[in-house]
Amino acid sequence: MELKALILAAGEGKRIRVIGDSKPLVTLLGLRLIERAILTAKKSGIKEFCIVVGYNGDKIRDHLLDGKKYGIKIEYIQNDEWTRGNGISVLKAKNLMKERFVLLMADHNYDHKILDRLLETKIGNDECILCVDLHPKSYLNVEDATKVLTVDHRIQTIGKDLTNYNCIDTGIFICNPVFFDALEKSIANGDEGLSGAVKVLAQQNKMRYLPLEDNFWIDVDDETDRKNAERLLYSKLGKDTDGPVSKILNRPLSIRISKLLLKTSITPNQISVLSFIIGMVGASLFFLGEYFYLILGGILVYIHSVVDGCDGEVARFKLRQTKYGGWLDSVLDRYVDAAIILGLTYGYWSINNDSMIWIIGFVALIGCFLNSYTGDKYDSIFRNGNGMKKSKFRMGRDVRLLLITIGALTNLIPIFLIIVAVLANFEALRRLIGFRNKLEIPS
Amino acid sequence: MELKALILAAGEGKRIRVIGDSKPLVTLLGLRLIERAILTAKKSGIKEFCIVVGYNGDKIRDHLLDGKKYGIKIEYIQNDEWTRGNGISVLKAKNLMKERFVLLMADHNYDHKILDRLLETKIGNDECILCVDLHPKSYLNVEDATKVLTVDHRIQTIGKDLTNYNCIDTGIFICNPVFFDALEKSIANGDEGLSGAVKVLAQQNKMRYLPLEDNFWIDVDDETDRKNAERLLYSKLGKDTDGPVSKILNRPLSIRISKLLLKTSITPNQISVLSFIIGMVGASLFFLGEYFYLILGGILVYIHSVVDGCDGEVARFKLRQTKYGGWLDSVLDRYVDAAIILGLTYGYWSINNDSMIWIIGFVALIGCFLNSYTGDKYDSIFRNGNGMKKSKFRMGRDVRLLLITIGALTNLIPIFLIIVAVLANFEALRRLIGFRNKLEIPS
Repeated sequence: MELKALILAAGEGKRIRVIGDSKPLVTLLGLRLIERAILTAKKSGIKEFCIVVGYNGDKIRDHLLDGKKYGIKIEYIQNDEWTRGNGISVLKAKNLMKERFVLLMADHNYDHKILDRLLETKIGNDECILCVDLHPKSYLNVEDATKVLTVDHRIQTIGKDLTNYNCIDTGIFICNPVFFDALEKSIANGDEGLSGAVKVLAQQNKMRYLPLEDNFWIDVDDETDRKNAERLLYSKLGKDTDGPVSKILNRPLSIRISKLLLKTSITPNQISVLSFIIGMVGASLFFLGEYFYLILGGILVYIHSVVDGCDGEVARFKLRQTKYGGWLDSVLDRYVDAAIILGLTYGYWSINNDSMIWIIGFVALIGCFLNSYTGDKYDSIFRNGNGMKKSKFRMGRDVRLLLITIGALTNLIPIFLIIVAVLANFEALRRLIGFRNKLEIPS
Repeated sequence: MELKALILAAGEGKRIRVIGDSKPLVTLLGLRLIERAILTAKKSGIKEFCIVVGYNGDKIRDHLLDGKKYGIKIEYIQNDEWTRGNGISVLKAKNLMKERFVLLMADHNYDHKILDRLLETKIGNDECILCVDLHPKSYLNVEDATKVLTVDHRIQTIGKDLTNYNCIDTGIFICNPVFFDALEKSIANGDEGLSGAVKVLAQQNKMRYLPLEDNFWIDVDDETDRKNAERLLYSKLGKDTDGPVSKILNRPLSIRISKLLLKTSITPNQISVLSFIIGMVGASLFFLGEYFYLILGGILVYIHSVVDGCDGEVARFKLRQTKYGGWLDSVLDRYVDAAIILGLTYGYWSINNDSMIWIIGFVALIGCFLNSYTGDKYDSIFRNGNGMKKSKFRMGRDVRLLLITIGALTNLIPIFLIIVAVLANFEALRRLIGFRNKLEIPS
């Protein structure tokens, strides 16, 4: 079932907004808050959005338009009474939400896996579910948060000023139209906030909760929150498959570069091509063979190795990862690998006229390719985990390129090509033989 | 929910059995019929089996033992009254089947996707479902089959001699213990066949059916059926990803070799290693450079190319495909590819002392690897289909190895290395660029 999402984006957000804009348009790592809300929900498969705007609503409309550029559909609801409680904003959407829907806050950032899980949760037609955080992390402003008290599988009560509570409201809901009835009732009773409706449903035993697992979420209310959110998102950037050189040397540098790139409109695929060009220029210099060019080429290859991490980072920052992006990056990297080894081999041969280097180059190239091939193939075949332990040292492209940079800078091409050849082929064979007993599972 | 399977293997099978054995032990492409029944069900996740044996039951037990060698668990039930109807065999299992179970015939061969679908079908606790064939293929012996008449979503009646029927019983059931009650009732009424119980349940509106889609199944009752089943299984062997050379030249040869290999106890992984050795010997001969060795090497490389299909075929014939097998085969193939190109390059260089060949060899190697890398990566990333059309001509390993064989046999190494280099790199780039617009989907 494909659900619509209702996003509340009517408030002013005085504590954080840039004068003249509104809070949903505050920028966080290259994306507006509301763009993050939309693209995160899109990752969970949501394709239709209904956005309630109020304060400076036109600016939000002008920015997001009909959603086509995000690959989704947006309808807008204008709430001119945005100074009143946020329950009023929800109620304005009553006529557009005739079926079960997701309810989100424009200023909340969260791991899309939370919404994935929420969407998988079974729910009755007269129930609503709120995601709650049982163990709020230190960066969350708990004082300012809405507190929740749960009993068994249900929410007992909710409110900003609860003293007896056991978890925090994350602002991620799945609702049935029954939510509007509850809202009308609570507004009639003078409570115009969302919490009012939650209380009404709680009294009817219709308000359930889903506790977060270890996933992150953060509510961006002020500049401190924004900084914390930035730090949080940065910390999620390293990949599980990062090798040692990547972790220690490249990733800290590439994140800095990515921060700068986020201020531009460069796309991840353009970064892949840029990184490819840098690598290819480096490889071309190797063809010249002389030490001076080796040094220049070595530096460029190392820069390539760092920049090569930025496409993925910017894609993740901007919630714009695509399969094609990963594919483009991998194939271009293989051509850079090949050009580097061919360049070093040819350059050395043209200066020293020693044909032995060709055989060394060949075996190094074989090792490089087998190293990538087995790594990628391993990831794709065994992606879904078979209790395999990851090896502590993963010989990968990061290590290979560092060795080549060192070889070029020290003018010791044959030795470093031999090291690459031995290590890379050894790693490929290790992967081939090591997994054998554990993997006689049917395909 | 993991279900047990009950397999009926009590009958004598006079029309097909080898004297002294029983029908479930008849061999079909390297596997006994009952082994096929077990391993096919295992593909759908069934791990516990209960086998009702009768005629020559000890031989079946001696052959299958406790099932450990198949990675499953087997219990046996002896039915000494195997000359009576097969309903008696099922009833003997009553005390072992306290929950929902799958009911299968030892002599039926079928595509495991049928059982996959059956297991996904929702079923009430007092219902049973029988898979039926609405459009029986010409190789099926319909005269001899059990006919079924369905009305709406239910089976109305069943029997060998029905004249008014619309489909055929495939012998693949999912049952609840209610089936035993129906059996007792029908046996009390003098009908000792399975059909009796189906009729009783049909009268109670508890007998549903699931129509096959395009999947194959066959009931092996006599030598003609066995031959048809063999032909059927052979025809399923070609892979979607087979290239043109594979389809036209290699596959027909490799299937013949696989038929011979099936008579031995050689495992698919041993075939991979054998094929690797043949390829490596061929590549080694290329290093010698002289035309005589090129011819020998070229022949071996072509034999390698053919035998390389046999590991997968034998694995599929024997229902023993493993992820590790696919992985081993791919990585070994990459080393053979590399050794072949290096051998040709070195051999040519050692005879002609023309260093240009090294650059050609390098680029050909790059092309070969990128060709495999993009092919495999493409398959793994886009496996789940994105409505992408397959290109009519897929430049793959089959084409590359044929070109190399021709190059070696004609002593035109540089020309054919250049052809391989151009075609393989072109194909990699085609995959890279061609898919671009269609694939901006989130990862």
